[in-house]
Amino acid sequence: MQPFQTIAITGKPSDPDVSETIDRLIAHLQASNRRVLLDADSVSVDRHGDTPRIGRDALLHGVDLLIAVGGDGTLLRAARLVADHDIPLLGINRGRLGFLVDVSPGRLDEIDAVLDGDYIADDRLLLSARICRGDQVISEGMALNEVVLHKWNTARMVEFETWIDGELCNRHRSDGLIICTPTGSTAYAMSGGGPVVHPDLEAVALVPICPHTLSNRPLVISAASTVEVVVNSDSIQQIRVSCDSQEDLGLVNGGRIVVTRRQARVHLVHPPRYRYFDILRAKLRWGDATPP
Amino acid sequence: MQPFQTIAITGKPSDPDVSETIDRLIAHLQASNRRVLLDADSVSVDRHGDTPRIGRDALLHGVDLLIAVGGDGTLLRAARLVADHDIPLLGINRGRLGFLVDVSPGRLDEIDAVLDGDYIADDRLLLSARICRGDQVISEGMALNEVVLHKWNTARMVEFETWIDGELCNRHRSDGLIICTPTGSTAYAMSGGGPVVHPDLEAVALVPICPHTLSNRPLVISAASTVEVVVNSDSIQQIRVSCDSQEDLGLVNGGRIVVTRRQARVHLVHPPRYRYFDILRAKLRWGDATPP
Amino acid sequence: MQPFQTIAITGKPSDPDVSETIDRLIAHLQASNRRVLLDADSVSVDRHGDTPRIGRDALLHGVDLLIAVGGDGTLLRAARLVADHDIPLLGINRGRLGFLVDVSPGRLDEIDAVLDGDYIADDRLLLSARICRGDQVISEGMALNEVVLHKWNTARMVEFETWIDGELCNRHRSDGLIICTPTGSTAYAMSGGGPVVHPDLEAVALVPICPHTLSNRPLVISAASTVEVVVNSDSIQQIRVSCDSQEDLGLVNGGRIVVTRRQARVHLVHPPRYRYFDILRAKLRWGDATPP
Amino acid sequence: MQPFQTIAITGKPSDPDVSETIDRLIAHLQASNRRVLLDADSVSVDRHGDTPRIGRDALLHGVDLLIAVGGDGTLLRAARLVADHDIPLLGINRGRLGFLVDVSPGRLDEIDAVLDGDYIADDRLLLSARICRGDQVISEGMALNEVVLHKWNTARMVEFETWIDGELCNRHRSDGLIICTPTGSTAYAMSGGGPVVHPDLEAVALVPICPHTLSNRPLVISAASTVEVVVNSDSIQQIRVSCDSQEDLGLVNGGRIVVTRRQARVHLVHPPRYRYFDILRAKLRWGDATPP
Repeated sequence: MQPFQTIAITGKPSDPDVSETIDRLIAHLQASNRRVLLDADSVSVDRHGDTPRIGRDALLHGVDLLIAVGGDGTLLRAARLVADHDIPLLGINRGRLGFLVDVSPGRLDEIDAVLDGDYIADDRLLLSARICRGDQVISEGMALNEVVLHKWNTARMVEFETWIDGELCNRHRSDGLIICTPTGSTAYAMSGGGPVVHPDLEAVALVPICPHTLSNRPLVISAASTVEVVVNSDSIQQIRVSCDSQEDLGLVNGGRIVVTRRQARVHLVHPPRYRYFDILRAKLRWGDATPP
Repeated sequence: MQPFQTIAITGKPSDPDVSETIDRLIAHLQASNRRVLLDADSVSVDRHGDTPRIGRDALLHGVDLLIAVGGDGTLLRAARLVADHDIPLLGINRGRLGFLVDVSPGRLDEIDAVLDGDYIADDRLLLSARICRGDQVISEGMALNEVVLHKWNTARMVEFETWIDGELCNRHRSDGLIICTPTGSTAYAMSGGGPVVHPDLEAVALVPICPHTLSNRPLVISAASTVEVVVNSDSIQQIRVSCDSQEDLGLVNGGRIVVTRRQARVHLVHPPRYRYFDILRAKLRWGDATPP
Repeated sequence: MQPFQTIAITGKPSDPDVSETIDRLIAHLQASNRRVLLDADSVSVDRHGDTPRIGRDALLHGVDLLIAVGGDGTLLRAARLVADHDIPLLGINRGRLGFLVDVSPGRLDEIDAVLDGDYIADDRLLLSARICRGDQVISEGMALNEVVLHKWNTARMVEFETWIDGELCNRHRSDGLIICTPTGSTAYAMSGGGPVVHPDLEAVALVPICPHTLSNRPLVISAASTVEVVVNSDSIQQIRVSCDSQEDLGLVNGGRIVVTRRQARVHLVHPPRYRYFDILRAKLRWGDATPP
Repeated sequence: MQPFQTIAITGKPSDPDVSETIDRLIAHLQASNRRVLLDADSVSVDRHGDTPRIGRDALLHGVDLLIAVGGDGTLLRAARLVADHDIPLLGINRGRLGFLVDVSPGRLDEIDAVLDGDYIADDRLLLSARICRGDQVISEGMALNEVVLHKWNTARMVEFETWIDGELCNRHRSDGLIICTPTGSTAYAMSGGGPVVHPDLEAVALVPICPHTLSNRPLVISAASTVEVVVNSDSIQQIRVSCDSQEDLGLVNGGRIVVTRRQARVHLVHPPRYRYFDILRAKLRWGDATPP
């Protein structure tokens, strides 16, 4: 695959470990004559010498690769940034493995391999969540992990209906619903009792949150399906829609929530030794000697 | 056991089925020369003839038995009303069995048996939830079902610690925590994955809501224990405490939530054929032919 | 779609309700000049007049449609019978809805519609389970619901490894593993905590049975993947492999279990009003008024 | 509390780590003039110098304390040995914390504290499982962790009934049932989805294994209750009863399984810094930084 020449870096500015990793990364990349740009909105103001800082609009043009330094949350934000721009994304952690940030900052050999074009491409599904009324789209959000319908400002259950490809799926009484991608299946959806869904599967999981009906199990459907959620007018103040816990959408009277697969993908890149199940075992401690 | 002579009735005023059941109940009780009083705060204004309506304060003096007509929610409210007054409580449903309202309105024979003193006494544990700062009690609530610590006005997880009898139990990252009585174990706690706890057991269950750590399982402890929950100052705006979904307690800076067993019990009475497991099987459809 | 002219019928011989339904079905089909054949291996010996009975080999040639009368188990057996012969399959229940036998015996209109070619075609995935040693296939089974690896003759956990497409997935310590199709996701796998997987999704779920490691969650992967299970030589006497609880495969020293998608599908046919989610809601009682 | 003078040691003979720990323990105990005896049935034949080895019968007379060196399984066996003899039990692990073996072999200070009488006494509930026919007891077993009713020699579900204190609790269709003590609640029962039950609670949990009915949740009852399990004659060959995976009981025609609390307790002793929740957090990785 093609090597990467112009590299942008993003990270959490307030974290000194991140800043230090970014400094070492800049030095290493510049030593191999790569062009390095910094995301001015994210990295620390008073560090990283005279490496050029550019705004996000500029960042999305002419960059070959975006490196996100930090935890899975940092990569999640970066992924949403580049989603519509076909810029590949490499995640470097701060010393602790993440599901998405799988390269250790000390493994410069692995980073070099990726930059030289020796990498594993791993395209991830994105969801679109739209609040619609009739044919009108009121607002729209995007999710790499999950779209969550959750109760808001109430201690009581909420009620809503799910429709899949125009057929009634279920009338829910619960604390909410998680609609997740395979990527999101190991995040919040897992706390709700959802299964692990392999990223190679074009699927979406619907995981009810504390459902009143015990048989109301997680449901895995094709990502080509359209999921619509209809909330009764009385309840629209008690429900919010959240995308990746990054953006919130408010409901409107007579509206519905429409969740579909986005055409664009997030293009993750991994070093050659990357294996999905290795990460899964490490993160979920499946290989652990000590039970359980 | 002793018969009941002066009977108060409470119910949901807006429900015509409840009003009709109350009318038939009044007629039946008066025909057997019992004194009937109506809870003026709950029953319909324009029905039930000239049966005396009295305010809640008066209701709690001189009454031998309170009959709650409606669903489990109605009985829950009635139970909280009489909790500190040692008035037994009989639940009559509107034709659909509840966990707590276990007498069918058509079974006048069962109601007569109870009134004549032929009943099964079933005392239920109550919880006290107090918001404390040092030795000071800021506010207090009561629960027959559960005390719930839940996230409020946020799509993100909240963090808090639980301490049991002065020992650190756990540092939680979750959507909240349900602390339930045996009575509450078949209510909201069950949606959260908690076990059924038999009412004869002096126990309390702690059920985490969507815990980040998958091994964070429900925990059953002695009801004699003191459960304390400590929330970081940064998070007190994101957490609320709710008792039986009936009353809410706000957190305060430097405060903690203290949950203990109340001395008073709710004195449920059931007809002689009452069996706890019969209700459980019927409500959870354990005996169902059709899976699952 | 094309109408069906020559119809074979199979059912559980010992069940009088099944026999009676078959009698009425024969009369109805013959009245509309259809040719009816009976599965000699399944229907009652002393009933059904002079309708021709033919052996299973003959049954699989020249038949346009096989009707299975009974429960889901009956259809499961019928499906395994026709799997490699491209004969469509219609399930008629004995008065109680099944996931697979979704036509009520009283709905002759629905049966007529199907026979006249007005039906919904619903192809279902089948699994192949092979016991292999090196390149040699020792034995082979087929499953419409699930391949189960379960402990045998022991009260203790068993240990084994799963490999997916040649990569190590997990080292298990558990009571076993269920590898199910979407069809099987609402059968035994659901008792093990697995998700519902929609039949339109080309997916397979791996559901661990009582895993020692609590984070060992169900996993949903592409049906195009090859799942291999490797059992230590010491344990091969403690583990058996079962396909749809219909056929058992024994392990061999140095062998492994290979599970893949079969090329052939089961061709279910349903009446026009069939909707997958309607069946799901009815069977799982999702629409139920009474909790939970 | 009283100091311990005559100390017996038991452990897994084939494990060199255990043998080495026992050697160091013998030296340490003898240096402080304590009398040390070795369980001849468990420790290595060719080690431990001339320390007296005595048979199990002798071991149970005149010993002040039994030290079990190994994992939780070793302590489980030791506990069953001393259960009826009121001999306290101290668990020393081989470097990896167990739920029951909570003293590290390097912490001689903690061991000394216990021997000097500075310890936390922790009595644990034991269960008795009897196979009865009428008033006749056919066979009997004992369990510190759990009594398990599990399917045997079959790939299919088994059916049985549970009765609690003479009342029908449930008709089960499942892979079996775990009846566990608080001690056992963190063992096999946890894999089956059961809750953690605090050892101070006089309770027993019934945890169904892969129940056909999804609402068939774990049930926690008083340890004073009598649990009876009735298996249909047709199924007695398909079900076995296992106590702590150490002893098996076979069913008999017309018999039932009766599980009650034993009068005797297991007397665990812990060093002064022992806290139940510390062990729980460590073993279940509740304090873990890395999710989940």
